[in-house]
Amino acid sequence: MQVLPGKLCVVLVEPRNPLNIGAAARAMSNFGFLDLRVVNPYDVAFREARSAVGAAAVLANAHEYKTLAEAIADCTLVVGTTAVRHRELQHPLKRLETGARAIRKHLASGSVALVFGTEKFGLSTMDLSYCHWLMRIATREEHISMNLGQAVAVCLYELSRDSKATATPQKIKRAAAGEVERITALLLDALRESGYVKPRTEASTEEKVRRLVRRLSLQSADAELWLGMLRQLLWKINAGER
Amino acid sequence: MQVLPGKLCVVLVEPRNPLNIGAAARAMSNFGFLDLRVVNPYDVAFREARSAVGAAAVLANAHEYKTLAEAIADCTLVVGTTAVRHRELQHPLKRLETGARAIRKHLASGSVALVFGTEKFGLSTMDLSYCHWLMRIATREEHISMNLGQAVAVCLYELSRDSKATATPQKIKRAAAGEVERITALLLDALRESGYVKPRTEASTEEKVRRLVRRLSLQSADAELWLGMLRQLLWKINAGER
Repeated sequence: MQVLPGKLCVVLVEPRNPLNIGAAARAMSNFGFLDLRVVNPYDVAFREARSAVGAAAVLANAHEYKTLAEAIADCTLVVGTTAVRHRELQHPLKRLETGARAIRKHLASGSVALVFGTEKFGLSTMDLSYCHWLMRIATREEHISMNLGQAVAVCLYELSRDSKATATPQKIKRAAAGEVERITALLLDALRESGYVKPRTEASTEEKVRRLVRRLSLQSADAELWLGMLRQLLWKINAGER
Repeated sequence: MQVLPGKLCVVLVEPRNPLNIGAAARAMSNFGFLDLRVVNPYDVAFREARSAVGAAAVLANAHEYKTLAEAIADCTLVVGTTAVRHRELQHPLKRLETGARAIRKHLASGSVALVFGTEKFGLSTMDLSYCHWLMRIATREEHISMNLGQAVAVCLYELSRDSKATATPQKIKRAAAGEVERITALLLDALRESGYVKPRTEASTEEKVRRLVRRLSLQSADAELWLGMLRQLLWKINAGER
């Protein structure tokens, strides 16, 4: 295995079917990716999956989170998966073959979250706003929606295939999702206080700004500086109000 | 899709679990392989699978055979799949990446059967004797046995995978230096007004911020948005001063 599987986690958002959770865990175990994170799972399903045979270790060690933001906080690259091709053109969309190469490269220096949405609806627009880019498995036009467990298996297979892809060590350390989100939150506060955010369109503006910040590919070393600047701007804006 | 999927059939030998039959059919439908053949299935399982939703067309058109010999009679290449590595050295064993290449080549002139054994025991020695060679998915030593539906999905993905899927030419247009500098100037104004810039270190702070903004790899399409946000922040800061 040429990738560093320890630095890639698989995130399942609100999975509903225990068989799918189990299948995802089994494929992870097959391909040597052992870090499973589950966001707000349907409780019964998660309990059932945990008690199923096979892939027990991955499931037993799986972490549960209330929100996607918490699940990915320590990752420096967040990749969403989607079957849909044209819904959200706010995000770059890569074919698995290409995306896997980018992920492998990133794993040389940072950690990656590979995010899968619910069985029925995939990732929500809100979920997508946490992603740097999206990845899709090329399927037949007439039947693009894959089973969750199979999609996980295919993605992890692609990531662990191809012996000749040597990852050029990227020395730039990107900011972790948690840092990026702190910056986003401060910026949003400042924009709200300054009247940039209109109440009627608050939700969509928030998502727009979140995506905007993700497109910056912020460096970890710079995150503190941006936080400091934004804090100062916000402080000044609030001081003017008093 | 570069293969001729019409000439490849998937053969499931004595499948026991209707969910696995359904999952295999669904993956076939996803990747455009529509010829499913089932050898001596557990009757109840096959009936249940046929009545399940999704991938209905592949299952409805599936053919049932009493023996593997009958199922593969019209194929010119028969490839067995196995998780085991050393059991039968009578057969050449290829990794999926290599085997898929050979299969694709063969499909240009002949038809191929891709054979999967039972969930529990895989292909029997008798079944194997019908195969020209064997193929395995490279997995972790500690957990080599894959779920049937996932193994089918991974094999068909590799067969339809596009080795030439070159990095989609990045169409992202970066912001021009002039735009970047306008953003820098506005940010510096806001930082000055908010007291972030100290008079004694003004020159060095200015340079630091200028470099910081350059490291963002700003996209041209986003530049206007950032300018708008910064203008609003600056306006608010100045409004508070009056």
